[in-house]
Amino acid sequence: MSDQFSVIGKKVARIDAVDKTTGGAKYAPDLNVRGMLHAALLRSPHPHARVLKIDATRAKSLKGFRAMVTIEELPRVVGYWFLLRSEKKEKDMFLRDNAVRFIGDPVLAVAAEDEETALKAVSMIEVSYEPLPSILDPNDALDRKDVKIHEKGNTAFHVTKHFGNIEQGFREADYVVENRFVTSKQKHASLEPIGTCIAEFDAAGKLTVHTSTQLPNWSQIYLARALGLPNTKVRIIKPYTGGAFGGRCGLIHGLEVMCSFLSRKAGKPVRMSFSRSEDFIGTETRHPMTIDIKTGVTKEGILTANSIKILANAGAYSTHTVGVLADCLSTGVGLYRCPNVFFDAAAVYTNQSLTGAFRGYGNPQLNFAQESQMDIIARDLGVDPVELRLKNYRGLGEIDPIFVDEIRSDGLKECLSKASEAFGWKDKTSRRRAEGAKKRGVGMAIMLHGTGAAGALPDPASATVMISSDGSVHLVTAASDEGQGNRTALAQITAEELGVPFEQISVSMPDTDVTPLDGGTHGSRQTYAGGLAVKKAAEDAKRKLLAFASEQLGTSEGDLGTKDGIIFKVRDPSVRLKIGDLMRRIQIGDMSICQQVIGVSSGVAPAMPGYYGATFVEVEVDTETGEVRVVKVVGAFDVGKAINPSNIEGQITGGAVMGIGWALTEELLLREGKILNDSFRDYRILRACDVGEIVPIIVESNEPTGPFGAKGVGEGTMVGVAPAVANAIYDAIGVRMKELCITPEKLLEALDRIGGVKN
Amino acid sequence: MSDQFSVIGKKVARIDAVDKTTGGAKYAPDLNVRGMLHAALLRSPHPHARVLKIDATRAKSLKGFRAMVTIEELPRVVGYWFLLRSEKKEKDMFLRDNAVRFIGDPVLAVAAEDEETALKAVSMIEVSYEPLPSILDPNDALDRKDVKIHEKGNTAFHVTKHFGNIEQGFREADYVVENRFVTSKQKHASLEPIGTCIAEFDAAGKLTVHTSTQLPNWSQIYLARALGLPNTKVRIIKPYTGGAFGGRCGLIHGLEVMCSFLSRKAGKPVRMSFSRSEDFIGTETRHPMTIDIKTGVTKEGILTANSIKILANAGAYSTHTVGVLADCLSTGVGLYRCPNVFFDAAAVYTNQSLTGAFRGYGNPQLNFAQESQMDIIARDLGVDPVELRLKNYRGLGEIDPIFVDEIRSDGLKECLSKASEAFGWKDKTSRRRAEGAKKRGVGMAIMLHGTGAAGALPDPASATVMISSDGSVHLVTAASDEGQGNRTALAQITAEELGVPFEQISVSMPDTDVTPLDGGTHGSRQTYAGGLAVKKAAEDAKRKLLAFASEQLGTSEGDLGTKDGIIFKVRDPSVRLKIGDLMRRIQIGDMSICQQVIGVSSGVAPAMPGYYGATFVEVEVDTETGEVRVVKVVGAFDVGKAINPSNIEGQITGGAVMGIGWALTEELLLREGKILNDSFRDYRILRACDVGEIVPIIVESNEPTGPFGAKGVGEGTMVGVAPAVANAIYDAIGVRMKELCITPEKLLEALDRIGGVKN
Repeated sequence: MSDQFSVIGKKVARIDAVDKTTGGAKYAPDLNVRGMLHAALLRSPHPHARVLKIDATRAKSLKGFRAMVTIEELPRVVGYWFLLRSEKKEKDMFLRDNAVRFIGDPVLAVAAEDEETALKAVSMIEVSYEPLPSILDPNDALDRKDVKIHEKGNTAFHVTKHFGNIEQGFREADYVVENRFVTSKQKHASLEPIGTCIAEFDAAGKLTVHTSTQLPNWSQIYLARALGLPNTKVRIIKPYTGGAFGGRCGLIHGLEVMCSFLSRKAGKPVRMSFSRSEDFIGTETRHPMTIDIKTGVTKEGILTANSIKILANAGAYSTHTVGVLADCLSTGVGLYRCPNVFFDAAAVYTNQSLTGAFRGYGNPQLNFAQESQMDIIARDLGVDPVELRLKNYRGLGEIDPIFVDEIRSDGLKECLSKASEAFGWKDKTSRRRAEGAKKRGVGMAIMLHGTGAAGALPDPASATVMISSDGSVHLVTAASDEGQGNRTALAQITAEELGVPFEQISVSMPDTDVTPLDGGTHGSRQTYAGGLAVKKAAEDAKRKLLAFASEQLGTSEGDLGTKDGIIFKVRDPSVRLKIGDLMRRIQIGDMSICQQVIGVSSGVAPAMPGYYGATFVEVEVDTETGEVRVVKVVGAFDVGKAINPSNIEGQITGGAVMGIGWALTEELLLREGKILNDSFRDYRILRACDVGEIVPIIVESNEPTGPFGAKGVGEGTMVGVAPAVANAIYDAIGVRMKELCITPEKLLEALDRIGGVKN
Repeated sequence: MSDQFSVIGKKVARIDAVDKTTGGAKYAPDLNVRGMLHAALLRSPHPHARVLKIDATRAKSLKGFRAMVTIEELPRVVGYWFLLRSEKKEKDMFLRDNAVRFIGDPVLAVAAEDEETALKAVSMIEVSYEPLPSILDPNDALDRKDVKIHEKGNTAFHVTKHFGNIEQGFREADYVVENRFVTSKQKHASLEPIGTCIAEFDAAGKLTVHTSTQLPNWSQIYLARALGLPNTKVRIIKPYTGGAFGGRCGLIHGLEVMCSFLSRKAGKPVRMSFSRSEDFIGTETRHPMTIDIKTGVTKEGILTANSIKILANAGAYSTHTVGVLADCLSTGVGLYRCPNVFFDAAAVYTNQSLTGAFRGYGNPQLNFAQESQMDIIARDLGVDPVELRLKNYRGLGEIDPIFVDEIRSDGLKECLSKASEAFGWKDKTSRRRAEGAKKRGVGMAIMLHGTGAAGALPDPASATVMISSDGSVHLVTAASDEGQGNRTALAQITAEELGVPFEQISVSMPDTDVTPLDGGTHGSRQTYAGGLAVKKAAEDAKRKLLAFASEQLGTSEGDLGTKDGIIFKVRDPSVRLKIGDLMRRIQIGDMSICQQVIGVSSGVAPAMPGYYGATFVEVEVDTETGEVRVVKVVGAFDVGKAINPSNIEGQITGGAVMGIGWALTEELLLREGKILNDSFRDYRILRACDVGEIVPIIVESNEPTGPFGAKGVGEGTMVGVAPAVANAIYDAIGVRMKELCITPEKLLEALDRIGGVKN
C-alpha cells in the first residue's frame, strides 16, 4: 500500500535528529536571556499546614536579592482546560489561599542575581506554619471529617455509570470472579527535569515565557487568566523537550505562575529551574488506584457483567483527575463489549504529592486490573487468553457506548495474530518450564486507547502552510513535539499532500504569538488531529497552487497531480511544471500577482478513534531472589496507517520499557507524606541492558477519518505491558501479583504465601 | 471624518513605546546566542586591487582562532530583488572574484572565541595585493579605458527616455534656463551602527540569522541562493531596529553572507558587528549625482520642456542603482505635467564606497535640482513660487506617464494652502530683511513620492490574523518596523477592521519561518501595502467571525457590525454579543467546533499612489561666518488618511531634520577614496538644538485604493527640504547654492563670487 506514497510510510529520519544527536538542540535548561535573575523555591516541610508568617528580613538584606512572591499573592492552577469552557467554570481553575498540602508544596519563591544567592535567600527565610492534621492514606480521606484538604471536602471527583443491568448480568454468568488490584505512584522521567522556565515581562506588560509545556495554547490562557491579562499579552515559546509523558500537560505547579509574578515584581527576566529532586517531589505523578473488579462470564467465556469500583489517590491538588477517571471507563472498560457494566470511580485528595496526566491517563491502571482479571478468567475456564480476548473485545462496526460513535477501524485481530506468531505464543504456552531456580513464563494483554479528545475535551488543531518562492514549504503549527517525532510526521503529511520533497519542509516550533491554536500534545493526538489540520491546510494550499498551475498549463485543476516538486497532468505527465518555477513566477516574477500561496485550516477532528494493541511478554523469575527479568516483549499496535514507521517503533519500544518499569521498578515511595526516592539512583527506570528483546510490530487498519488513514499510538504502547508481565509471572510461578510494583520483596512474600512455585 | 473610526486617525502610543523608552527593547547588538563566536573583518586599504595571497599562518596559531573565510570562497550580493524574478536574471545577483573595489571592501573575515582575538587575528593576517589603477571621480569613469571596475565595464546603468518632443518644447518656451546641480554622499545614521548579525547553522544544515534587514523575506532568498540552500533552510529573524532609511534594504555588504559562511565553517554561531566607523566606511550611501537640468517655460509660467541629464556615482558595487535612477524619473520628473521631457541618466562605478537605497531613493537628488530650478524660474518670471507649482504639477485625475495609472488622490493644494498659512508665507515673502550680518530668507518646494513599488518591483504583502479565545488578536506579519511605527499602524488597522480594542492586538516581529511573504519595508509602503494585506486578512477573519455570530444571533451577517469587542445588530444594537464570548464558545466551549478564526491574505497592492508634500523653510544666514540656521520648517504632507497622526508627525519632523542635514552638514568626505569623517564627531547629523521650529501638517486626500484611504509618507518628508533651504538662502542673500552640502566655506566663497549680499 505504501508504494502509492512518496514519503508517507517511509522511515525518514526525524527533522531534528541531527540537531539533537550532535548536541545542538536547545532544551529549556539550555536557554538564557541576558540579564535574567534566578529563582529558588521554598517548599513546605509539612504535609498539611497553614502559613502564618513569613519573615524574609534577613534574606532581603542579602546582596543580589531582588524579589519574593508568596502563595498568598498569586493563584495556583488546580484545573485543566475543560474548565476554560465558560466564565463560570473557569473560576475553578484557580486556588488562592495560604495553605500548603504536601511536603514540597511551594510556599514562596525568591529571585536573585544568581542561583546561589536565591538558594541562600530561601534558606534564610523563616516561615511560621500552623501544622494541620493530614491524610496520607486515600482510604482515610472520606472518613476523616477532622481534615478538610480542600474547601469543598476531600472528594476530588466521583462518578457512577450504569450500562445494562449489572445484577441481571451476574445472574446470567456461569462464573463470577472478584479481585482487587492496586497500582503505584509512577513518575515521568524526562531527559531534563520537568520544570524549567524563563519568564520575562517587558516594560509594556507583555509576558513571554519559555517553557516545555505540552499545551502551549492552553498554558497561554491559563497564565493570562492567572495574571489578569488578555491572551495576546502572554506569549509561550516552547523549546525542544526531552520527553513529557503527560508530565508537562499544563502549567507546572509552582513554576510558570510564580516565575511570571517574580518577573513582574523584579522587572527583569527570571529563570526558574527545578532540580531532579524537585521534579520528583514537586511535580505531577500517575494516580495510584485501588480497583475492585467483579466479572461474570458464561462458560463459553462471554462476558456478561463487569463491576468496577475505583478509589484513586489524587494527591494534594487535582488537575487531570476527572479526565483520568473518565479514561478508565471509556477505553479501559470500553475495550470489551460486556453488556452490563457498573462503574463507580472516586478520587480523593490526600496530603501526598501531585497527580496529573501520565501516558495512558487512567487506562494503564484499569487495564492492569482488567487484563489481569481476563487472565484469571482464561486460566479458570481453560480458554486460551488470546481466544478470550477475541471473543469479547469491541471491534469494527460496533458502537462505543461512551461517545456513541462507530468503530471504523480495527486491527486487533491482526495485532494478535502477528504478535503471537512473532512471540511464538503457541510454542511457549505449551513448552515445559525449565528446572532450577529461574522459571520462565509468558503472558499477554490487549488494550484500546483513544486518539485525541474530540468530543471529550476542547480539542482544536490548526495549521498554516506557506509555500516559498522556490517551492519549499513552511509549515506553521503549534503542535508541539515532546521528542516522539510528531513534527517529522507532520512534515511528511505536508510533503505528501503537496507533492513536495520532504527535505524542503520546515516545521515551526510552538510560539503562541505566531502559531495558530492547537489543543496541545496529549492523548496520542498529534499525528491524527494535528495531522488532519496540517493535511487540510496543505489541501487548501494545493487548491490555490493548482489554480495557478491550471491557468498556466491550460488544463483543469482536476486533471493535475503533484509529486517531487512537480505539477503534472495526470493523463499526460509530459505536461508539467516545477512548483518552484510556478511559485517564483507568482510571488516574484509576475509583478501583477506577487502572492504567496498560503493554506490554512482550523477545527476539531471528526472522531476520537480507538487504536488497539496486543502485548506479549516472556519473563524469567528468579525464585530465590524474587527478581523478575523480562526476556522478550512483542508489541503489536494498530496505528491505522504508519506515517513514519521508525517513530512508531520508537513508541512501541519506549512504551514497553516504561510499562515494564511501572510493573517492576518505578514507584515513588512515601513515608509520612515524604517522598523517599527522589533521584534516579533510588527511583529506578529501566536501562536498555535491563530489558530483553523488544519486537515492535505495526498493524495498519486504515482509519477512514484519519490523515492518510492514521490514528494515534503514543500512549497505548505502555498500557498492556504491566498486566502482560503480571500474567507471565503467574504463568511462570503460579503467583498472581495484583499490586504494582512487583518488587522482589512482594514476590517472595507472595510465593511464600502459596508455599512455593505452583506451575 | 475620523469620528467614524474607533482607532484609525487616533494618536495612540506605539505598541513598542514603553519597551523602547525604558530600555527593554533588544536591538541587534543586544542579542547573544550561547556559545557564539565573534567575527572581525579585514578590509582593503586599497581603492582597487586584486588579492594575490593571504597568509594567515600566524593568526591561525592564536588561541581562540576558529575559522576564516575569504572573498574568493563566497559570493557577494551585488543586486536587488528585481533580479530574483527569473533564474537567468538571478545570476547577476552575485559576484565571485578576488578583487576589492573600495577602501574598506572586505577581504576576509575571522571568527574567534572573543572579539579581541578576532581583531588580533585579523591584524596578524598578511594579504598581498596587486594594486590596480582606480577611478575616484565619476566623471572619469566613462573615459578611462585603462580601468575596468567591473567585468562589464564602468557603466552601472544607463537609461534614456523621451516624452513628447523636447526640441519642440524648447521652441514653444518663452524662457529657457539651464543649471547644473550637484548632490553629496549622505550616510544613513541609525541609532545602532548598520551591520550586526548572528548567524547560526544547526548541525542539520539549517541557517538562522538574526539581522536588522528591511527585507526579511528577500534577504532569506538572497542568503539561500548565496549558500545553495532551499529557502526554508534559511531563517531570518529581525529584532528591533533603530532606523534604517534604506541602509538595511537588503543584505549588508560583507555581513550576513560572510558571517553565515563562517558559522558553517566553524560549526558554531557567529556574531559579526560593525563598528560605527565600519558602518560609515563599509555600508551603502546615497548616490551622489550631477544633474544638468534645462527647462523651458511660457511667460505665463507653464512648463513646455524639461531636459534632465544625470550622472550618478554608484560607487564600487551597485545594488539599488537601477531603482534609484528610475525614481528620479518617475516621481522626481513626474511631479510636473510638462509635455516634453528628455531624460538621460547614467550611473558609473567608481572606487568609492557603496551606494544603495536611501530615503527618497533618487527623488531627493532630482527634487533638489528641479525645485531649485523652479525657484529660479519663479524669481526670473516674478511669479510666486507657490503659484508656479500650482500651475504645473500633475494632479488629480491625470495619468502618470511612467506607470500609466490615474492619480486618484491629490492633497497638494491643501498642503500648499495650509503650510503657507502656518508658515506665514505671504507675510514673510513681503517682509523686509533685518539689517546686520544675519539675514533671513524663506523658500519652499513641493514633492511627489510613490507609495510602494507595485508594478515596478515584486511587491507582495501578506498577513494572518488569528483571533484568540478571549477576543484578543494576534496579527502575524513580516512587515518590519524600522522604528517609524508601522507595526502600530498595522495594529490599528486590524483593530478597526475587526472592531476589537487596539490594546488587545499583538503584532509579530518578522521571522521567515512563521511570518508570511512580505516585500519588505521600503518605498513608504508598509502602511499602504502592508496595511492593505492586514486589512484583507482582518476582513477574512471578520467574515468568519460574523458567520458564527449570525448563526448565534439569528440574523444575517450583513446586518451585523463590530466595535470595541462587541458584535451587534446595526439596526438594533441591543442584539449583541461579545467577540470574546463568541470566540470562547467556538474555540473551547462548543467541543464540536473548536475552531480558531484565522484570516489570511496575500497579494500585491492595486496601485503605487503618489503622495504629495510641501515644505516651507525660513533660514537665517550669518554672512560673516557662512553659517546657515534653519529657523522654521513647515512640512505639509498628503498622506491619504492618517492612520496614526503621531507617527506621521514623527516622520515629518524627522524628515525635516534629515533634509536639513543633507542640505547643510551631512556629507561623507573622501580623499583618494578614503572616507575622512567616519564618526559622528566628524560626520555631523543635526541635533534637536541645531534646528528651529518644525511644524508638521497632515493633509488627508483619501486614496481610494488604500486601507481606510491611506497612502505612504515616510520617505517624502525629507525630499523637498534641501531645495527649500537652498531657495531660502537665495531669498536671504541672493546666492544660488547649487551644490550640496551647503557648507559655510562654500557659502562664503559663493557670496564672495557675487560680491556680497544681493537681496
